[in-house]
Amino acid sequence: MTNSPSLPATRGPADHDVRDQIIHAAMEHFAHYGYEKTTVSDLAKAVGFSKAYVYKFFESKQAIGEVICANRLAMIMQIINSSIDAAPSATEKLRRLFRAAAEAGSNLFFHDRKLYDIAAVASRDQWATARAYEENVRLIILEILAEGRASGEFERKTPMDEAALGIFLVLRPYVNASLLQHNLDTIPDAVLQLPALILRSLAP
Amino acid sequence: MTNSPSLPATRGPADHDVRDQIIHAAMEHFAHYGYEKTTVSDLAKAVGFSKAYVYKFFESKQAIGEVICANRLAMIMQIINSSIDAAPSATEKLRRLFRAAAEAGSNLFFHDRKLYDIAAVASRDQWATARAYEENVRLIILEILAEGRASGEFERKTPMDEAALGIFLVLRPYVNASLLQHNLDTIPDAVLQLPALILRSLAP
Repeated sequence: MTNSPSLPATRGPADHDVRDQIIHAAMEHFAHYGYEKTTVSDLAKAVGFSKAYVYKFFESKQAIGEVICANRLAMIMQIINSSIDAAPSATEKLRRLFRAAAEAGSNLFFHDRKLYDIAAVASRDQWATARAYEENVRLIILEILAEGRASGEFERKTPMDEAALGIFLVLRPYVNASLLQHNLDTIPDAVLQLPALILRSLAP
Repeated sequence: MTNSPSLPATRGPADHDVRDQIIHAAMEHFAHYGYEKTTVSDLAKAVGFSKAYVYKFFESKQAIGEVICANRLAMIMQIINSSIDAAPSATEKLRRLFRAAAEAGSNLFFHDRKLYDIAAVASRDQWATARAYEENVRLIILEILAEGRASGEFERKTPMDEAALGIFLVLRPYVNASLLQHNLDTIPDAVLQLPALILRSLAP
């Protein structure tokens, strides 16, 4: 429905092969040692270049982490969008938004924990990629609200911005990786009860 | 409205002076070095007894942490209860529950960070004290719901348990210390928008 999170600004020629090598080495190192324990020196050694050369392409370890994180968040956003696009009504879209966001996040936690940890750092430290992801979720909520108001599924009294902000705040603990990791036990209840509560609040 | 979180089981005579000395030393050590970095040996040294003697009173460092945590959560529960008790309607009680819980939690975070960290460990590791605190919040929600249904403020169609669970899941990120610390920025919006959304969902 909306665009994917935008990639962070990087340096040097965009299609440069070395950039891909660095990203590839970083994914392996982050997956093996974790994001926080990997240094730019480790990555430089892995690709066989100097640290200074790596800095020609990325201004910091975070910039490398952001590219990896942005790629994964773009994948999750695609999963969410394709789940929603197939839904027959705004009501069903809202239910699917909760389920798809919570499940995609918990899948990442259980099947790619080191990558999840990068997403948790990104959420905690408010990286541009994490903020763009939350912003996309907010836009999807606005689109679903507009659709449901137009079709008569939802009430029209509450200001759109207020309704959207409330729904976003309810959903955020299942979208933001630094919150979701402390929230995994509640997902089965949450994906049923939270959309149900919100739909009651939207009843015309 | 409801009881305070129950104290965890401890060993030895309940009113024993040494128990208080240990708790006192633990509060100082936890405040200074943090819960995770303090050992039972450190506390034994501080009170001038052997580690074995300390273990006569508490079976673990966690048991000491639980007493301290339970005392603070009981204080927070009192703040919440006195805020709610003064409210003229179930509607207003629900608003105050959100505000009091979120503010008491964030006050602890900003003014007594080391003690907050114990509460975060307690939430993360599901200590009995943290579970009892969440259970108390759940009971308060049920009481407010019952009152609002009896007074005609709230709808009566949704099964009580479902309505209560949904509201609890919305409130939990502002009650659970391991979640709240990643949620502090949203408190000003949350204490307004989340009760407003819930009250729309409860409209008769």
